[in-house]
Amino acid sequence: MVAHMQDTTTGRVQATATNVAARESWSTDNSFTFASLPLQYGGQLGPVTLAYETWGTLNAEGTNAILITHALTGNAHAHDAEHPDDPKAAWWNPLIGPGRPFDTTRYFVICSNVLGGCYGSTGPSALDPETGRSYGMRFPIITIRDMVRAQQQLVEHLGVRQLMVAGGSIGGQQALEWAVSYPELVRSVVVVAATARLTAQAVAFSEIGRQAIMIDPRWQHGNYVPGEGPDGGLAIARMLAMVTYQSEESMEMRFARHPARLKSIPSPSRSADLGGRFDVESYLYYQGESLVQRFDANSYLYISRAMDLFDVSEGYPSLEAALRRLRSQCLFIGIRSDFLFPAARVRWLADQVRALGGNATYVELDSPHGHDAFLKEWDMMTNALRVVQA
Amino acid sequence: MVAHMQDTTTGRVQATATNVAARESWSTDNSFTFASLPLQYGGQLGPVTLAYETWGTLNAEGTNAILITHALTGNAHAHDAEHPDDPKAAWWNPLIGPGRPFDTTRYFVICSNVLGGCYGSTGPSALDPETGRSYGMRFPIITIRDMVRAQQQLVEHLGVRQLMVAGGSIGGQQALEWAVSYPELVRSVVVVAATARLTAQAVAFSEIGRQAIMIDPRWQHGNYVPGEGPDGGLAIARMLAMVTYQSEESMEMRFARHPARLKSIPSPSRSADLGGRFDVESYLYYQGESLVQRFDANSYLYISRAMDLFDVSEGYPSLEAALRRLRSQCLFIGIRSDFLFPAARVRWLADQVRALGGNATYVELDSPHGHDAFLKEWDMMTNALRVVQA
Repeated sequence: MVAHMQDTTTGRVQATATNVAARESWSTDNSFTFASLPLQYGGQLGPVTLAYETWGTLNAEGTNAILITHALTGNAHAHDAEHPDDPKAAWWNPLIGPGRPFDTTRYFVICSNVLGGCYGSTGPSALDPETGRSYGMRFPIITIRDMVRAQQQLVEHLGVRQLMVAGGSIGGQQALEWAVSYPELVRSVVVVAATARLTAQAVAFSEIGRQAIMIDPRWQHGNYVPGEGPDGGLAIARMLAMVTYQSEESMEMRFARHPARLKSIPSPSRSADLGGRFDVESYLYYQGESLVQRFDANSYLYISRAMDLFDVSEGYPSLEAALRRLRSQCLFIGIRSDFLFPAARVRWLADQVRALGGNATYVELDSPHGHDAFLKEWDMMTNALRVVQA
Repeated sequence: MVAHMQDTTTGRVQATATNVAARESWSTDNSFTFASLPLQYGGQLGPVTLAYETWGTLNAEGTNAILITHALTGNAHAHDAEHPDDPKAAWWNPLIGPGRPFDTTRYFVICSNVLGGCYGSTGPSALDPETGRSYGMRFPIITIRDMVRAQQQLVEHLGVRQLMVAGGSIGGQQALEWAVSYPELVRSVVVVAATARLTAQAVAFSEIGRQAIMIDPRWQHGNYVPGEGPDGGLAIARMLAMVTYQSEESMEMRFARHPARLKSIPSPSRSADLGGRFDVESYLYYQGESLVQRFDANSYLYISRAMDLFDVSEGYPSLEAALRRLRSQCLFIGIRSDFLFPAARVRWLADQVRALGGNATYVELDSPHGHDAFLKEWDMMTNALRVVQA
């Protein structure tokens, strides 16, 4: 019996490392709550719950753990043991499982919903114990470092003494932050499509999406009733994000100027088409609508802002000083067509780490699919991950 | 006294959108009205007024004209004869005037506000003669071809028998359309940062901006009272457009992650900052606010949509068939860092024209300033324009 099975805080704890596979449909059955988290920007938040899933078994030394960190609107369901071969059943499904890069016969794989999220972890839609109502915009500003510190509480609770951390995008930011914040814990780290800090252009796209949410009258300064939130604004934010996750090249391959196939999908504003509709528009409406069905607008504001605010050097004299702390084997994966986290900037970061004496490898995915390639290019990802030893 | 000065229809035409006129320090003194314009997508529009400005004198043969076509939110004031050395006094000021590429001592230079615009030409904010109220969204869908056909009426009215057409972005689309639609009239054409049709990515950005306008409750399905329009939504659309007009490189040079200098500029949603404000955010808020002060939201919807819908091959068997019609000397100018109209696509178009036997030259501006370089890189533009004979 491993430690994490004894200490989960909520009453209804069914999933364990061994019986996750038995569940019929996935839901995050595991959660861990701790009293209080001091925050990077001041103050503290508590109690804090992190919802998580695990696969595989932690060894007696607690050294075979892999923490997977998810992307902006992701969740803890990185792998689906029941449908291990369905890439849509879980977001990193093809990379996790027996014989795969994150091999569940050898490693204890953990994925937790991020702090600020809306898939079981404490975020703006959680109840503020002081008021008995949802936090809404009274939720404090959270950072990547806060997210990582919360995860550190979780893995300690699970009995982990050493781990690999791997993730892409905001998950890659967390992986990097982990390796800098906890060099003694992080054996190896995989930073995919992420850098030490966002470009001005990426911050700009991020803020435009947030403004679209906050201009929606249904946002109500964040005090919307669940289910009556700023669906249109959130859909617009998602539409923009989806463009930044792809590339001109991939969108041209997929949509070019084809007329819409699905004309019944309403636009976020519910307004009539202006002189026809392109397929790319229908596609984006659909993506917007889909996110609205599954994600909380305030969580979107807080988590996307954490991405903007992230600067791994914060609190250190310089970026070099921060990177000199690294003790992990580092794998940086860039994507040739990524314009949100340009490959050249990911490569530059790997070069910096190496120049400072660190153990860093850079691999570039030669994919046309832009930022999202780390969620699509399974063979390329599998090959790239061979470089690192979990 | 040249012909066009005798025939203006109204004494002193203020901008049709009265709220817009009041915000402008300059006004378009010339205008030309004709009864009716058949539209590419069916139906007709009338009467149609085009506001315009001219510089220089038309020769007796009517063959020394240059038509300048402006960008999305531009106007007829391409040159300011009173302040010829102030680049901010008019949008292509440094390129127009004695001894400049568009030499007003040799050429008769014309610039008209585009059909659908809000700077004196007939657009959604103009009065619909059938209802006595602004057209709003009852304005018909207009295309680049419609804009060009309206301009053709104007230049014919002015006595022009042959001309050069030059413009960038949507102005470049118009220039190309001119050369294909009226090969016998267009002596030479300068297509800057424009292609035969937009990419899916560019259409996507365009549509996201429009959705932001239309989700603003003040939009009122287009029936807003002048001065009470969807300012927030229009500001968001402009913020996004401004990002696409620049480049990662130029934004990084200018803003990087600097904190905001101007913190008093409100965001479009008027919401509080989330954990500080970056300079790039202040800058974008400022750009959004500026556009709101000078531009009509419905015009933005219609004109940006015309960009999306543009396909110079429409009505011809193929793009090749359309390009085979060209008889002009063609100069295509691409911008190295432009991601809205990628240089490779502009170059491809020039190559196509040449491959079909046309007279086409391609020049690339080696600028980091993205799409907007054609409104900033005066020396590069002046050099590039040497290639073509007006």
